[in-house]
Amino acid sequence: MTTAHGIVETPAFMPVGTQGAVKGVTHRDLESLGAEILLSNTYHLYLRPGDELIARRGGLHRFICWSKPILTDSGGYQVFSLAERRKITEEGARFQSHLDGSSHLLTPEKAAEIQANLGSDIAMVFDECLAHPADAVSARASMERTLRWAKRGRDRFQQIRDRAAESRIPNPGQAQFGIVQGSVFPDLRAESADRTVEIGFEAYAIGGLSVGEPSDVMYDMVGQTTPRLPAALPRYLMGAGTPQDLVEAVARGVDMFDCVLPTRNARNGQLFTSQGRINIKNAKYAEDDGPADPACQCYTCRHYSRAYLRHLFATGEINAATLNTLHNLHFYLDTLRRIRESLTFGRFENFRQLFHESSSRHPQDS
Amino acid sequence: MTTAHGIVETPAFMPVGTQGAVKGVTHRDLESLGAEILLSNTYHLYLRPGDELIARRGGLHRFICWSKPILTDSGGYQVFSLAERRKITEEGARFQSHLDGSSHLLTPEKAAEIQANLGSDIAMVFDECLAHPADAVSARASMERTLRWAKRGRDRFQQIRDRAAESRIPNPGQAQFGIVQGSVFPDLRAESADRTVEIGFEAYAIGGLSVGEPSDVMYDMVGQTTPRLPAALPRYLMGAGTPQDLVEAVARGVDMFDCVLPTRNARNGQLFTSQGRINIKNAKYAEDDGPADPACQCYTCRHYSRAYLRHLFATGEINAATLNTLHNLHFYLDTLRRIRESLTFGRFENFRQLFHESSSRHPQDS
Repeated sequence: MTTAHGIVETPAFMPVGTQGAVKGVTHRDLESLGAEILLSNTYHLYLRPGDELIARRGGLHRFICWSKPILTDSGGYQVFSLAERRKITEEGARFQSHLDGSSHLLTPEKAAEIQANLGSDIAMVFDECLAHPADAVSARASMERTLRWAKRGRDRFQQIRDRAAESRIPNPGQAQFGIVQGSVFPDLRAESADRTVEIGFEAYAIGGLSVGEPSDVMYDMVGQTTPRLPAALPRYLMGAGTPQDLVEAVARGVDMFDCVLPTRNARNGQLFTSQGRINIKNAKYAEDDGPADPACQCYTCRHYSRAYLRHLFATGEINAATLNTLHNLHFYLDTLRRIRESLTFGRFENFRQLFHESSSRHPQDS
Repeated sequence: MTTAHGIVETPAFMPVGTQGAVKGVTHRDLESLGAEILLSNTYHLYLRPGDELIARRGGLHRFICWSKPILTDSGGYQVFSLAERRKITEEGARFQSHLDGSSHLLTPEKAAEIQANLGSDIAMVFDECLAHPADAVSARASMERTLRWAKRGRDRFQQIRDRAAESRIPNPGQAQFGIVQGSVFPDLRAESADRTVEIGFEAYAIGGLSVGEPSDVMYDMVGQTTPRLPAALPRYLMGAGTPQDLVEAVARGVDMFDCVLPTRNARNGQLFTSQGRINIKNAKYAEDDGPADPACQCYTCRHYSRAYLRHLFATGEINAATLNTLHNLHFYLDTLRRIRESLTFGRFENFRQLFHESSSRHPQDS
């Protein structure tokens, strides 16, 4: 995948840098882990420090000093998560800031404008994120609204692009991805995919999954959607998921992922390993001199024992977050690297089988 | 200075890794900053994870994966800071853990035993840390007790060393430093120095300063004490101080320092720079695209703007602690490097003058 800030090998995993930083690890760590693209959250950056301030700094890349590609979400997902602090109308989503209660209106047009100010390489169109479970009637209504919003968001994006020269936005090469919705209804997913492609975006994402539905339902929805998206363009499954989810989604044609699991779980002491998940806070690791994952080559596993990692976590040291995050991101990025390699050599099915066997062979920490 | 884990160039600054980790920065960061020796806190490690657990791991170096020298304090300072949760008798200090309220007794002998289990390269003898201000009578009583404790601590240390082969302690090459007390009374300081040297340690530290007395009083006490300590052995000023304090103490013959200022203040948003201190949280930095310190070559200053650092601090990102700590430790370690260079080339007085002029030229952030 080629972006205004360089090439990304796919399938790719995007570490989440919510507020312009991946919690606990510096950019040089991310680069040495092989991260080629970051995700940042429009909602958070819009509120603090503000998209206009970032535009005055020359855009998000210059502000956070990250020269590789960045994808920004539309802000929609965060706003919809605000529950009773937001109200959805046809115009958009009115919400109260989680920081100071101030009132804001996020519309398809506004989401495009904010992301133009941020200057990300990939902007996401503003969509409605329906909660799971949803009945077929509200799922259809939401899908229809998402399509109307997609058209409005795309129009505004194109206006901005047409006037890029005068308006001096930070990244005139920004692309915009459309988002397929439709809850867990195959016919709605199919219709949403076809009509989103009809509007026309640089590429397409699958939204509204990994929101609490069973894994096999998610895999099924992905498998039914990807064939309707242009084969030559990257397909992005938003917000997924576990390492197993990633492997299964790749098997169904997905090229891009983002997820807070590796970073958030690291801060909670949960480590992803080749033998499944471990909870480093467990007392059984207090005198365990082995690495978190014997098969892992990350900085954490090459240097530190489970005993030390448990001590850092138990004593609330910042370095627990850093070392655990380094490991979990390495595990995710390395899994994607191995997936790419297996695809190159036509051995993906073999990789997929071995991966699932290895992760389920050992008892998992609760 | 030569230790069981290698050579340390002096004068040296020791970053503080209270619980076996310098908060916010990994060991590889510390090594790339040029840190040659770490300080760890006996009190904290004794309580969590326990010195015996660390001994079973092969000692502190192996447990935390740091192959260079480590100095451990005696635990006394932390215990004395517990205020009403501790009681001092001739035997030692009985205290309640700040973690679970459990009762413990720290004696000169016990402090030597714990540090033998930790296997640090330099163990500190257990002393009484008198609060400032103190009257001459209690200062003398405390100094006398510290001398009695010093003898007991030294005896226990030597017993352990004599039996090192059988007891399999992690670091048979451990050294023990004596500590000069005497509050702000020159005659007590002189007597304490002479009688501590009489007991005989591998080297000597100046304790009980940097506890709230005015800078010139501290400089005066240091200046009166160092000439009474053996010139061939390192002299360690405990717990000091500001960059200015370090320069002034070196001028008076001090070789070793430790202080939480660079790391703790970093986490509070205060940065030490060649132009004095700045508080990165100040609103005036919100759109400041310059580095924290234009004269600085650290990772933080080479990559990130004050505007970004302020954003990270304002949003409570972990990376604020990491990037600020990297900068402050670089400033301290680089100051010591420049001091050593100026001493080598006989230009220390010139350096000292320019250093003070540069730090006081600009208005400081409140």
